[in-house]
Amino acid sequence: MRYSQMFIPTVKQIPADAEIPSHQLMIRAGLMRKLASGMYTYLPLGLRSLNKVINIVREEMNRSGAQEILVPSVQPVDLWQKSGRDLDYGETMARFTDRHGRENVLSPTAEEAVTYMAANEISSYKQLPFNLYQISFKFRDEFRPRFGVLRSKEFIMKDAYSFNADEKSLDESYKEMYNAYCRIFKRCGLDYVTVQAESGEIGGSGSHQFTIPCENGEDVIVQAEDGSYSANLEKAAVDPLPKQPAADVGEIEQVHTPGVGSIEAVCEFMKTKPEQMIKTLVYKSGGDKILVLIRGDHDVNEEKIGLAADRNIELADEGTIKELTGAEVGFAGPVGLADKVSQIIIDHGVAAMSSGVTGANKTDYHIRNVVPGRDFPLEGENVKIADIRNAVEGDTYNGKKLLFRRGIEVGQVFKLGKKYSSKLGCKFLDENGKEHFCTMGCYGIGINRVIASAIEAGNDKDGIIWPVSIAPFEVIITAVGDDDKVVSTSEKIYNELNQRGIDVLLDDRDERGGVKFKDADLLGIPLRITIGKKSLANGNVEVKLRREKKSENISLEAAADKAVDIIKRLKNELRV
Amino acid sequence: MRYSQMFIPTVKQIPADAEIPSHQLMIRAGLMRKLASGMYTYLPLGLRSLNKVINIVREEMNRSGAQEILVPSVQPVDLWQKSGRDLDYGETMARFTDRHGRENVLSPTAEEAVTYMAANEISSYKQLPFNLYQISFKFRDEFRPRFGVLRSKEFIMKDAYSFNADEKSLDESYKEMYNAYCRIFKRCGLDYVTVQAESGEIGGSGSHQFTIPCENGEDVIVQAEDGSYSANLEKAAVDPLPKQPAADVGEIEQVHTPGVGSIEAVCEFMKTKPEQMIKTLVYKSGGDKILVLIRGDHDVNEEKIGLAADRNIELADEGTIKELTGAEVGFAGPVGLADKVSQIIIDHGVAAMSSGVTGANKTDYHIRNVVPGRDFPLEGENVKIADIRNAVEGDTYNGKKLLFRRGIEVGQVFKLGKKYSSKLGCKFLDENGKEHFCTMGCYGIGINRVIASAIEAGNDKDGIIWPVSIAPFEVIITAVGDDDKVVSTSEKIYNELNQRGIDVLLDDRDERGGVKFKDADLLGIPLRITIGKKSLANGNVEVKLRREKKSENISLEAAADKAVDIIKRLKNELRV
Repeated sequence: MRYSQMFIPTVKQIPADAEIPSHQLMIRAGLMRKLASGMYTYLPLGLRSLNKVINIVREEMNRSGAQEILVPSVQPVDLWQKSGRDLDYGETMARFTDRHGRENVLSPTAEEAVTYMAANEISSYKQLPFNLYQISFKFRDEFRPRFGVLRSKEFIMKDAYSFNADEKSLDESYKEMYNAYCRIFKRCGLDYVTVQAESGEIGGSGSHQFTIPCENGEDVIVQAEDGSYSANLEKAAVDPLPKQPAADVGEIEQVHTPGVGSIEAVCEFMKTKPEQMIKTLVYKSGGDKILVLIRGDHDVNEEKIGLAADRNIELADEGTIKELTGAEVGFAGPVGLADKVSQIIIDHGVAAMSSGVTGANKTDYHIRNVVPGRDFPLEGENVKIADIRNAVEGDTYNGKKLLFRRGIEVGQVFKLGKKYSSKLGCKFLDENGKEHFCTMGCYGIGINRVIASAIEAGNDKDGIIWPVSIAPFEVIITAVGDDDKVVSTSEKIYNELNQRGIDVLLDDRDERGGVKFKDADLLGIPLRITIGKKSLANGNVEVKLRREKKSENISLEAAADKAVDIIKRLKNELRV
Repeated sequence: MRYSQMFIPTVKQIPADAEIPSHQLMIRAGLMRKLASGMYTYLPLGLRSLNKVINIVREEMNRSGAQEILVPSVQPVDLWQKSGRDLDYGETMARFTDRHGRENVLSPTAEEAVTYMAANEISSYKQLPFNLYQISFKFRDEFRPRFGVLRSKEFIMKDAYSFNADEKSLDESYKEMYNAYCRIFKRCGLDYVTVQAESGEIGGSGSHQFTIPCENGEDVIVQAEDGSYSANLEKAAVDPLPKQPAADVGEIEQVHTPGVGSIEAVCEFMKTKPEQMIKTLVYKSGGDKILVLIRGDHDVNEEKIGLAADRNIELADEGTIKELTGAEVGFAGPVGLADKVSQIIIDHGVAAMSSGVTGANKTDYHIRNVVPGRDFPLEGENVKIADIRNAVEGDTYNGKKLLFRRGIEVGQVFKLGKKYSSKLGCKFLDENGKEHFCTMGCYGIGINRVIASAIEAGNDKDGIIWPVSIAPFEVIITAVGDDDKVVSTSEKIYNELNQRGIDVLLDDRDERGGVKFKDADLLGIPLRITIGKKSLANGNVEVKLRREKKSENISLEAAADKAVDIIKRLKNELRV
């Protein structure tokens, strides 16, 4: 392609609403434009990269034996009511009533629709296993879209669904997908890490997340220092903290703390530290109340609480808390509440405290000298001590120090089990004519996130540094000046590279060299060939890798061969 | 691919809700399944064809110099309010309010969003012309979805938008697209016709429609017998009918026609024929009333009325009609109304009548012996005689007999002019620094309709007959029986064809030959190679084109070469 013919509106200024490099650079390099909050139009350069990612994903999915389908993006809400996920997704799922009064959703994913279809077609074990995938538009009505395409409302997802006869077959499909994902991200030039993950609202029994480590990622991944363990923050387990030596603390003492509700405010008021506080939270599960205790400096992990409680939980509303504690929100504490709730779940960190400060269950009052085991139970039928918090710096797991990195989740694989097949009646008869629900897995890749994370991982102050496999072009020819020889040489190399199958952009614009160099760096095309009057006079052109500082002079005759070799080498680095 | 590994759920029975062959066969051959009314899941075989169409469209759009982008499918309603099309589309456009209370639409097309984006980027004539296209999900809340993917709610459209400096440049872009469409449909194996078309709600000054003639098409195309003229029914012009000889008709005579409103009922009651009746319709334009007269046996063409009136028109409501005529709906007539309306538009057919029957403007009464020019004006400032009806059998245009064919519209190109650029502020400065709105064109292809119309045009009682370019596979190898030699020969030819770049399906299922032949015919793959014990004993395999009755025995050694040759020949037929 010729730059002069392409629609590449680059921008010098950093867009005001773009907080992170990938968002800034996708606007600045003319890859996309904002249409509305969380909705972006991909421009030609951006779509070239997106289509390259899609092709890699499609090739590797096909190689794994998965078969491509295409499911409607608009789906009747009934399907989602059958699985119960219309409630789980809540406001995040966009809905509309059609002209005949039927309610539809804009699907954020397609477990229900694919299982519904499969349920009508599967009858025998002989048809299993199979794995169906699609690459399509998805929608989530994000409360706060941000970071460009990393948290956008509209996005392209590759979602796959395997239908298996049993757990063993699911394990094989899961492994197949796991391997395909490794190939996909490798080929896309991404240094991914895989970690154990929680399944979240999708449900199921096992999950891995593929994450691209980078400073601005929204996800936190946790790894043991010796590499023996890795998980995302939602999943990462921690060792119990050592029991603090018993101290000679006196009786509980009530302190008047008027209007002082937050941990920070209480600490300041009572001259204590967050790690000496017992944060008391009230959850609900159906009509049951569950008391949750963690240290003031820790964050609760609701996935872990759900597992410890062994049921779905949600934070109690203000009314419930007031009724239970007899106080305004902000003054709850465990003392005296054991008999009033159906379960108390206590984090190991709290159980290990010698004493602490907590709410008095009385508006505007806290209490100190609260001793776990003395002033509230650590044992009993409705008491459970468990790991229910997020890991933090200093934690260990299996005795190994845990390290933390931020990253962008680009893919996740899930063992779903029978959650959807049982709810949507997806059954088969085995060899003996006995009926079973299918065992399922599902496997997602955020296509747009692959682009954004490649940019987060590959950029400098001048612009993007693309991996060759997903760069909008492999080579840019920068023709400097309008000297006849420069023009004809540029055209010649451009034509030769095109003929040799290189994806090449010829910067034939009527612009100064400086402008062209700046744009070339901003666009981030892996290899630049500069053709200028001066070096041409010596029979040379300049060749420079975007990711390296130094350039090299090459004889004009060798230029095309050299470019082809370099691109081949760059591609080989990403071969699987 | 191996049939045994693919998800191809074929069906013997014709689905109850499938009225036409393409719909029936897309279900029966396992190309798709219904998710809900007007929404279909494409299965692996169907998506293979769909992706082949997409690739052809993409290649030819790129060849034309158009650049691919991707616009959000969900768009803020404000954009559509700016163009006024939120009203034009009415209930056909699905809308939803997001969690922050903002109204969005599911875009049925993208003129607004693309023009909005371009408006922010275009400043100079130097950037023009360019042509942006996308291939993406679209949604229309059809009142009555039917005919499978031909009138579905959700579909994939290729939509392109050219931005030009002036009409001359638009003409060039339009021609470029017109030619690209010819190449696309040729390559897809479709025998298309192009006709002049009306622009409809998209607006603009010129349009052509690409139509695939077939019995079950919803569109009607009209062609002069000598090929000198062709248009769709909305556009097709007709010559005025010859003036009927003046007859000696008496005075107007009033007839009591209690409760007799429809043309048919009046004819029966009054012993007359529809062609002797003057149908009187009332339209509105803003506050103005417009009287429209056509013969009882003709259908009004609202596009033509709009052009004759030179403004937007809509059918008047009951109240307006009653107020104007002083009678219930069904008894309107032109006599005495000339001064009460702002315009009377009379079809040539009515002007040519010697006398007729019409409503009396009095509930339950009609009048006969109504003479045009005597009893209502044929001349005057507010009278216009024009072509405002649909062409019918027997009509001529420029003296040539008009022929009618049904067909499926697969593409349409439009000269939009400045409709969208002026409403969305898409401007540029010319060489002299003077500001202009961009002149635009838009160009659509219904990707799913390409599939359906190929099937409508290519099928027989046994199944689909695919064009080679968009068939899910090019060759099917039918292995009959489980004889070792049959299996090993099938595998050998399968591997060889795969290696030689042929898209081949090996029917390796454990099924009887009869079942495999039936499925091969149903699936419609262009070339079948049958490998059976008996012919193998003679060193032969059987080769058969799906579109031909006869098969041919080929020596085993020559089989792969022969298959490659045949596929090459079939592809050559579709070369552009």
